[in-house]
Amino acid sequence: MANSPSGDSMLDRIVRILDSFDPKTPKLSVAALARRAQIPRATMYRLIEDLVGHGLLARDHEGQISLGLRLWELANRSAATQDLRTAALPFMEDINQLLGQNTQLAMLHQDDVLVIERLSRPGSVVNQASVAGRMPIHRTSMGMALLAYSPAPVLEDYLSRHEEAVLDYHPRLRHELAEIRRRGYATFDGFIDPETTGAAAPILDGQGYAAAVLAVVVPRGSATLPAAAMALRTAARGISRALGYAADG
Amino acid sequence: MANSPSGDSMLDRIVRILDSFDPKTPKLSVAALARRAQIPRATMYRLIEDLVGHGLLARDHEGQISLGLRLWELANRSAATQDLRTAALPFMEDINQLLGQNTQLAMLHQDDVLVIERLSRPGSVVNQASVAGRMPIHRTSMGMALLAYSPAPVLEDYLSRHEEAVLDYHPRLRHELAEIRRRGYATFDGFIDPETTGAAAPILDGQGYAAAVLAVVVPRGSATLPAAAMALRTAARGISRALGYAADG
Repeated sequence: MANSPSGDSMLDRIVRILDSFDPKTPKLSVAALARRAQIPRATMYRLIEDLVGHGLLARDHEGQISLGLRLWELANRSAATQDLRTAALPFMEDINQLLGQNTQLAMLHQDDVLVIERLSRPGSVVNQASVAGRMPIHRTSMGMALLAYSPAPVLEDYLSRHEEAVLDYHPRLRHELAEIRRRGYATFDGFIDPETTGAAAPILDGQGYAAAVLAVVVPRGSATLPAAAMALRTAARGISRALGYAADG
Repeated sequence: MANSPSGDSMLDRIVRILDSFDPKTPKLSVAALARRAQIPRATMYRLIEDLVGHGLLARDHEGQISLGLRLWELANRSAATQDLRTAALPFMEDINQLLGQNTQLAMLHQDDVLVIERLSRPGSVVNQASVAGRMPIHRTSMGMALLAYSPAPVLEDYLSRHEEAVLDYHPRLRHELAEIRRRGYATFDGFIDPETTGAAAPILDGQGYAAAVLAVVVPRGSATLPAAAMALRTAARGISRALGYAADG
């Protein structure tokens, strides 16, 4: 791909532009966007023109730039996440209503937990997750459940890059992962908000590995945690079945 | 932006590649993708390499190409659709459970209705809509409700391009749109499936225009249509309020 004088490709630049937006900054001025994406202002004007023309970015009447609806359409129309969401949503609604707490669906992606869907309720405990947001693997119940049910090479690969940080939190990691597999779910206290506990159960694929994870956040020390975990495990098995995987074992 | 010898830009090509996937073809071989996107095979290999490297595309162990999770993440993390979905989902669940039918959330986008969210139920009537899918404006209750509550220039602009087709379906269009505004919802019989009727109520913004539309599909001739429409109107007002718009008038 043709590179700019500074050596980065057109695609690098497009990705840096899209990556400049987040839930707290859904709109940016051209100048702010150029700074964030580290693209010279003059080049930026031309690039924005092209991206707006294709609907990948949008420009409002004040000249502020945001992501375009066409980008959302292209990315969601045939996304691998769509089948998972469709299968999981009815079960997530059940959990959300039965437990009265935020319910989340997430996958492993690169070295993070990527939140695919989230159902909230008024009165739920604080929860930092947002759709398409990332959470750390070894500091969340979601990440620990995903690790416990990953193929060995995925676990070893993650550890090869993060062993020190992981062992800080989990000095007996392998024992802990075995325990999660024995119980069928993971819990984690006080991530970000010290007053909450997360619980997460794997949605298993045909090989018995986690295709995704279903999780709730409950008040810390809640007596309902074992019941919540059982509800999650039950719903996660239902989702596996709805995805066409047998939920045995 | 640098153009290829054939005259189309890198961005044109990327958009054509992303646009080659749809719910029926979430995976394509490199050859099939090159054909669909009309990009020479040799160029295609290099482009795919770059797009896979950035996570915008993914390649499975059989070499089949699909959209990448990173594309989904970038497009959803700060999407304008996210606030709308978050506000609408609890109300959509209520409608979905009360009426026992597919419930949809959609917006106008270019010359189509773009489906933002959809909740399904086992036993619902047939329904062609899918998330991030497009539906025709003047042949759906969703589109007619959106048109009826659009600013005059949006309606005139649409008619300037589609007047003949619209008048074929709606010879008394302006009368019909006024009637939709008087009743507060639109209905449409037998689109694609002759056995169904759609009903749609606008989610109004602060100016009284439709920011989006909430819709259900019910069996044609259903006696519950007036009750369904009232439920939709009620829920649509709740969503307006949840979005921060006053729901008066």
